[in-house]
Amino acid sequence: MESTSALLSLTRPDFAPGSVWLVGAGPGDPGLLTLHAVHALAQADIVLHDALIPDAILAFTPTARLESVGKRAGRPSPPQLRINQRLIRLARQGLRVVRLKGGDPLVFGRGAEEALALAAAAIPFRIVPGISAGIGGTAAAGIPLTHRHLGRSVTFATGHDSAGGLTKLDWEALGRGADVLVLYMAARKIHEIAPRLIAAGRDPAQGVALIANASTPDQVVTITTLAGASTASMPPGAPVLIVIGPVVALRAMLSGWQQTTPLTQAPRNAERRWG
Amino acid sequence: MESTSALLSLTRPDFAPGSVWLVGAGPGDPGLLTLHAVHALAQADIVLHDALIPDAILAFTPTARLESVGKRAGRPSPPQLRINQRLIRLARQGLRVVRLKGGDPLVFGRGAEEALALAAAAIPFRIVPGISAGIGGTAAAGIPLTHRHLGRSVTFATGHDSAGGLTKLDWEALGRGADVLVLYMAARKIHEIAPRLIAAGRDPAQGVALIANASTPDQVVTITTLAGASTASMPPGAPVLIVIGPVVALRAMLSGWQQTTPLTQAPRNAERRWG
Repeated sequence: MESTSALLSLTRPDFAPGSVWLVGAGPGDPGLLTLHAVHALAQADIVLHDALIPDAILAFTPTARLESVGKRAGRPSPPQLRINQRLIRLARQGLRVVRLKGGDPLVFGRGAEEALALAAAAIPFRIVPGISAGIGGTAAAGIPLTHRHLGRSVTFATGHDSAGGLTKLDWEALGRGADVLVLYMAARKIHEIAPRLIAAGRDPAQGVALIANASTPDQVVTITTLAGASTASMPPGAPVLIVIGPVVALRAMLSGWQQTTPLTQAPRNAERRWG
Repeated sequence: MESTSALLSLTRPDFAPGSVWLVGAGPGDPGLLTLHAVHALAQADIVLHDALIPDAILAFTPTARLESVGKRAGRPSPPQLRINQRLIRLARQGLRVVRLKGGDPLVFGRGAEEALALAAAAIPFRIVPGISAGIGGTAAAGIPLTHRHLGRSVTFATGHDSAGGLTKLDWEALGRGADVLVLYMAARKIHEIAPRLIAAGRDPAQGVALIANASTPDQVVTITTLAGASTASMPPGAPVLIVIGPVVALRAMLSGWQQTTPLTQAPRNAERRWG
């Protein structure tokens, strides 16, 4: 019996015309798509996607129109309000609309704002959780996010706010609070964040991993310390995840035996992309 | 074109005999399984699974032997060392071994210890990330984990340690640090945790959600405040996730329009269960 036979016997939730599914695409590896996400992409009439979604994931939507609404550092992108309005308009046209977001739609992705806008406009929606980079990207880099002795609490935070400044957080309390810190979109602010965490009492020799293009064939992992993090170099333009904590040291014990080959699929629909 | 045709054209990573895959099953809804997890279950010779994995997820393994190694509150369970040794012995027999864990294998699941034991025994392994309850369970309950203004940082922590006591964490710093707190396995300790968070300066009127059996048909969500959390009642024996923060208030704005039907499948292999 093959896995696909099991799939065919499933009863999937109905994706009704005139509704919007906010779907998490995971960190990059198409093998981290969920069954709900595969179902959503197969049924969609139109897919509004972030800029960094790999073609191998977009290939799961055989017939839908693809529209990029991505925010990519340094390039103009549609403001959030316009994305919200477009989702509403497309749903009111009776389409099955997928809003495909990297990682999980509710972890630092403005998914909450999109869901609130849809609810306020009386548009039925569904949240399809995805593997957040903080979980799937750290695993792909060989770093266990938690450990009974070394990581009993984890904080996820963003490094910069929507205006490009350092996120207005209590970095001193964050530094003292959790054993492990996972910072999204922080590569350009780590030179400001690292000294604050050290001032809060974190060991300057504590391990830091910078993970670029997590879980993809282009993944690059740089291991350094909190004191050295500000000067680590990263591939330009790549999304970078930063992990700070004693668990980073476990990577060296695992890396010889961990398999991380992603699932692969030839892009089949690049010619359908626009926007 | 149907989604299954897309699935059939994929190149999945090889699950070699003599290796162990640590697989996240997600919070309960089989639709939150990843493609890697479906592949692992289809190929496995034996599946060592947590106690709370639903039959509808175990049904994805058509021929593997199923063995429960679950830790269930109040019942005896195999010690972690014995689970590690069993994984190693089964792999050395040349089997394809799946260790199926609720949520994500590296988020409070002892997956790090299992991976370290496998690496120390020179057993090839793979981590297959899953949707952690803190992400998928909160979404199913209609609570956005982050929001640009109300939730710019999130801390995941466990409520009790392996001896059943309150986890030795800096609860004062955790209380001050992140906008949102997600507590796993904390229902029996919330009466100790809530007063510490209030003492750390958190608003006693701040929203708290207690989510039992997240993302399953038996999901129960109780909304209260930090001051009232200690006296909230929960279904006995159910796994409970606790969310604390201003984002809890967003649920009321979303709930009328959010669809949450899980993917369903009739259990087909209950007679194969043992252990």
